[in-house]
Amino acid sequence: MAAAVAAREYDLAFLHVSYGQRTERRELRAYGEIADFYRVTRRLVVDARALSAIGGSSLTDLSMPVPEAEMGRREVTTTYVPFRNAHLLCIGVSWAEVLGAKKVYVGVEADSGYPDCSAAFIGAFNRAVVEGTRPGSGIEVTAPLVHMDKAEIVRLGTKLGAPLHLTWSCYQREDAACGRCDSCALRRRGFRLADVKDSIAYANVD
Amino acid sequence: MAAAVAAREYDLAFLHVSYGQRTERRELRAYGEIADFYRVTRRLVVDARALSAIGGSSLTDLSMPVPEAEMGRREVTTTYVPFRNAHLLCIGVSWAEVLGAKKVYVGVEADSGYPDCSAAFIGAFNRAVVEGTRPGSGIEVTAPLVHMDKAEIVRLGTKLGAPLHLTWSCYQREDAACGRCDSCALRRRGFRLADVKDSIAYANVD
Repeated sequence: MAAAVAAREYDLAFLHVSYGQRTERRELRAYGEIADFYRVTRRLVVDARALSAIGGSSLTDLSMPVPEAEMGRREVTTTYVPFRNAHLLCIGVSWAEVLGAKKVYVGVEADSGYPDCSAAFIGAFNRAVVEGTRPGSGIEVTAPLVHMDKAEIVRLGTKLGAPLHLTWSCYQREDAACGRCDSCALRRRGFRLADVKDSIAYANVD
Repeated sequence: MAAAVAAREYDLAFLHVSYGQRTERRELRAYGEIADFYRVTRRLVVDARALSAIGGSSLTDLSMPVPEAEMGRREVTTTYVPFRNAHLLCIGVSWAEVLGAKKVYVGVEADSGYPDCSAAFIGAFNRAVVEGTRPGSGIEVTAPLVHMDKAEIVRLGTKLGAPLHLTWSCYQREDAACGRCDSCALRRRGFRLADVKDSIAYANVD
């Protein structure tokens, strides 16, 4: 969805990072299909295996179960991958510096409750980008969805013609979305509230 | 050298990151020998291959020559690996979050002239750590050498009994230090000004 926003203004370069997450192959497929949709030629697929070596998350440690959805939860769940988005953004910023790109788009949503999805994190990270890249690099991380809820995102995506049917949100299954994890629950509620049909396949729901 | 400072106050955990740099194997050897010296049992060796996939640096792109030393240079040289230290720190911070560690030591020196070695970068990065890790993680990156020149570092290392003979600085050779790159030049000048013998082998100098 961040790509749909970026595509209105910029030529796209698409980054995918595999970090040993459970749905790594499915996410890579979604990446390729969305990149094809936007006819993106500059693509970079890389590993960040340090995240799975470090573990500490039910997304990368298969011995930890992915919790079922619980709306209104306040604590950070075990699906939090410690400081993950900083890793992803670093890769994006390094690539931007070599490409000469000025904007790095990321689709974080503060609603998710993860600290590394917050506007405060993105703002602080941008200060580190200014200080830690070449003087005048002018690179800025942009998080156009950070203050939106899932229904607003679905509505915006529909308006922009984003290929929502090609996206993947489920934390734990690759054949069909589980429908039960937090990420599936947030996605399903968003489509329902936006009154838009979610055309991906679900395994466990009617 | 940052390890020698940290060892005065903390139990150590040692991180090594290979990112396709020219002297990757030699640096890994130095890492192991220094970890043995400090009897460190918690060790993590990981790859950050995204940096070599992205390239844009004479340290990771073998088609770009490593420049010879030029003291007083003002521009950022081709040995700058775009935003590299942010990648290394992210890995350290994620590991700290899983270990429950509070401090992440890094041996950057502002004198090097790289933007991601500056005190301003470390300070900004620390704000991103506060915002992007679990509330109350209390993790802080500490750069005890950032304001020191190489001679001061050599003197401090000597005073603390740091194994300077096990360290590696050269950018381009693994058998013996080249003596000609910026990193060798800074190291040699530091030892000379500190009046301490540098006992590593050099290939091209008397």
